[in-house]
Amino acid sequence: MLASDMNAGKGKPPPGGDAAHSPNSNPSDHLYERVAHRITHLIDQGTLGPGDRIPSVRKLVMQQSVSVSTALQAYQLLEGRGLIEARPKSGFYVRARRWTPAPEPEIFHPAISSKKLNMAGLVMEVVGALIQPGLVNLGVAAPPADLLPTRELHRSLAGATRRYPSLANTLDPSIGLRALRVQIAQRALKAGCTLSPDEIVITNGATEAFHLCLRAITKPGDTIAIESPTYFGILQAIEMLGLRACEIPTYPKEGVCLDELRKRLDCTRVKACVFMTNFSNPLGSCMPDAKKRQLVELLNARGIPLIEDDIFGSLAFGPTRPGVAKAFDPRGMVLLCSSLSKTLAPGYRIGWAAPGKFKEEVHRLKHTCSIGNPMVTQLAVADFLATGGYERHLRRLCRTYAQLMQRMSAAIALNFPAGTRVSRPQGGQVLWVELPGNVDTLELHRAALSHGISIAPGPIFSARRQYRNCLRLNYANPWSEKVEQAFVKLGHMITRMAEK
Amino acid sequence: MLASDMNAGKGKPPPGGDAAHSPNSNPSDHLYERVAHRITHLIDQGTLGPGDRIPSVRKLVMQQSVSVSTALQAYQLLEGRGLIEARPKSGFYVRARRWTPAPEPEIFHPAISSKKLNMAGLVMEVVGALIQPGLVNLGVAAPPADLLPTRELHRSLAGATRRYPSLANTLDPSIGLRALRVQIAQRALKAGCTLSPDEIVITNGATEAFHLCLRAITKPGDTIAIESPTYFGILQAIEMLGLRACEIPTYPKEGVCLDELRKRLDCTRVKACVFMTNFSNPLGSCMPDAKKRQLVELLNARGIPLIEDDIFGSLAFGPTRPGVAKAFDPRGMVLLCSSLSKTLAPGYRIGWAAPGKFKEEVHRLKHTCSIGNPMVTQLAVADFLATGGYERHLRRLCRTYAQLMQRMSAAIALNFPAGTRVSRPQGGQVLWVELPGNVDTLELHRAALSHGISIAPGPIFSARRQYRNCLRLNYANPWSEKVEQAFVKLGHMITRMAEK
Repeated sequence: MLASDMNAGKGKPPPGGDAAHSPNSNPSDHLYERVAHRITHLIDQGTLGPGDRIPSVRKLVMQQSVSVSTALQAYQLLEGRGLIEARPKSGFYVRARRWTPAPEPEIFHPAISSKKLNMAGLVMEVVGALIQPGLVNLGVAAPPADLLPTRELHRSLAGATRRYPSLANTLDPSIGLRALRVQIAQRALKAGCTLSPDEIVITNGATEAFHLCLRAITKPGDTIAIESPTYFGILQAIEMLGLRACEIPTYPKEGVCLDELRKRLDCTRVKACVFMTNFSNPLGSCMPDAKKRQLVELLNARGIPLIEDDIFGSLAFGPTRPGVAKAFDPRGMVLLCSSLSKTLAPGYRIGWAAPGKFKEEVHRLKHTCSIGNPMVTQLAVADFLATGGYERHLRRLCRTYAQLMQRMSAAIALNFPAGTRVSRPQGGQVLWVELPGNVDTLELHRAALSHGISIAPGPIFSARRQYRNCLRLNYANPWSEKVEQAFVKLGHMITRMAEK
Repeated sequence: MLASDMNAGKGKPPPGGDAAHSPNSNPSDHLYERVAHRITHLIDQGTLGPGDRIPSVRKLVMQQSVSVSTALQAYQLLEGRGLIEARPKSGFYVRARRWTPAPEPEIFHPAISSKKLNMAGLVMEVVGALIQPGLVNLGVAAPPADLLPTRELHRSLAGATRRYPSLANTLDPSIGLRALRVQIAQRALKAGCTLSPDEIVITNGATEAFHLCLRAITKPGDTIAIESPTYFGILQAIEMLGLRACEIPTYPKEGVCLDELRKRLDCTRVKACVFMTNFSNPLGSCMPDAKKRQLVELLNARGIPLIEDDIFGSLAFGPTRPGVAKAFDPRGMVLLCSSLSKTLAPGYRIGWAAPGKFKEEVHRLKHTCSIGNPMVTQLAVADFLATGGYERHLRRLCRTYAQLMQRMSAAIALNFPAGTRVSRPQGGQVLWVELPGNVDTLELHRAALSHGISIAPGPIFSARRQYRNCLRLNYANPWSEKVEQAFVKLGHMITRMAEK
């Protein structure tokens, strides 16, 4: 996995290796990317060799006539790509060890038969352990506080309570604050989706949205088609509602395999599909928009509803946000679920469903299960979305996540043993790692915890507790020496397990 | 129903009529009550006759050496009791028409067999209509904004976001903020209940708490014993979960009839009971604490869990808050549910469950259905409870509700036809009214809506859509000319319907 081959760098990308160094788009999109590109070129040509000090920020500013912030961004990018490293009070140096990205995981073929689940205990045990405070958090896919515009959001909250004191403390017995639904409908346009505010039901996060939608269209015993691997929360809900799961093979890059889906639909009575079409959890796959259209046509022809979970859709590294399958659905058979918990306000729990023709039923369930949502938080978020620079924040967040993803990919390539495969998501906040076949990630999970590190082991993402040698890593946390060390530690543990 | 009999007043209470004039406790508890008592005496003795002007506030202040605020409170009390009336720019006058309270409703005996429900459509249709803005709200049991310490609560919110900016925007993936659970556990002591903070799960209002508890202990097809009449939200949840309801006759004063409950338990396999032990909705009944102990013993002996809904428990008109059945449960078989939505923060949606031995299951369900609650609102409410004078607010609110209840009882007695019966709750915020047998309150509901008045018709409180001649009235809204006129209007409509 390690490579000292200078040609593996940026200048002449190796086959399949380009994604690691230019994940976004054209490197000349931003000035700092152009600067980083020039330095990469110097390294690739051998002008700067391993261990060499690279020009200081001050020098770079003078030499290249750029601002300090641009210079710093360029260095951060190079650091994220594993090309250079910072040494305290000394400056930036060309990394001694270069890396080529690990190959991507391949599609996995789970069993064809549908399955009654028995996951709840395992998931609660594992997830309960992951949320202990003080861990190096590689296990939980929550956005880190430092990267959120929390101060501005709280300011919107204070403003809302001043402007609407009574309204902010009134029961919302309905489908949610209209001003918030208007903001959500406006943003849906970016995903190609034309929604009326009245088609939206505000929920307590996407989890509640998903759960209500699933309840609205199923009854116990029904079979649900899901991606494999898929988010454990989907498995928990399927189990709780007494449903069966039918796992569909899923490409790490492009999502569910439509041919396989068609085959399963031909032989199994599937009541609904639940797919994360954009930057799925845990694979990070993103279904191309044309494929989304095919998916909707395939399901529409059979009268099968699709619950589309789009919580990561706006965390795209590329210049445009991918569309949603709902955009291609004229018949109201796609139930779109999303939230602001991954991008803005995990502490406010604002999610929503746009359940198409099932809206009345979803609304009735929401009313029965919890009446309505807090009004005060809805007012705050509606105000923030209308005035607070959410789009600017999103762009910044995506840029940061793209860098952090590169950085973690580098740490994996440099520390994990040969045979490791890693997904290359173009958005979202998780990496899917396939380790050598004999590594047991449930065991690794427990061992890592004892060293203060959380990871999400593969079996919690599968109806049959498969993916025993896989794990999901959250790359959203700011990089630090501690995280770096966690990868060294994990690398040792995994290598030992792989050699057993 | 009307009475000009002077003896029906305060001095010598008629049999059964005392509750209407001294609902709280000893009338000498407060100075303004003593003042009101003296004036009542003057009216009863005939010193002041119908239509006579009573001493002005200024005079009263001088004559009785009391403060202006005491004098005003005394007059408001007398006004609430229907003894005097204010005339604009003129002063207070002895009411021409005196009233004796309507008799109380009697216990009702619903069918014995358990019932699969079909209520959801009716409830959503009726409740959906009730929440239209601009109505004279007699239909929805929500606390009016004017009576809540909303400004102070919002101040706690602002303080919390200043002190804990990051924490306030962090996902709460657990059972809820510990500081809030500590405050709730402290308050449970007032209801005789010793709880550890770790026994509590924070939820999105009591509705979610109740719903999770019900799910935790039942499976589709199970039979649940409920009060009759009972809160429509309980019926909705039972229907949604595919359960059956067994309605237990319930006394308007003392709650479920234990003898009848025992009989039903002997002949029906009841999986759980769901009772509102304190100031029930819609009856307003309050089970004496000794009876709560008997109830728990009865159920414990049969291994039947009790979901106890206590949302109105702290709205007691008397000097002490009633206890909860959970206080008598050593075996963890009582699942207590409550919230702050009726007393403090309808716009914040803070509820909780203390599910006894079913806590792990309730927590797992909460996690699966909606992960956790907003953190920012939990921090605010925890701060308010710790520092904000919640107890003082509660005392004030209870005093106001007691007066408003009297006032509404008077309006009913003065406007509704003979044959009307009205409950006499000692807390909470609703009255249960039984009209002459041929009045159809679903029809009345629609007719009232067309006049801008909301009421809650009886059939939505019954598994069999019974109580067709009953309705629930919310007395929590500040009294006004508009409300007074609404009762005149309702009186006309009901009288016409009764005469058909």
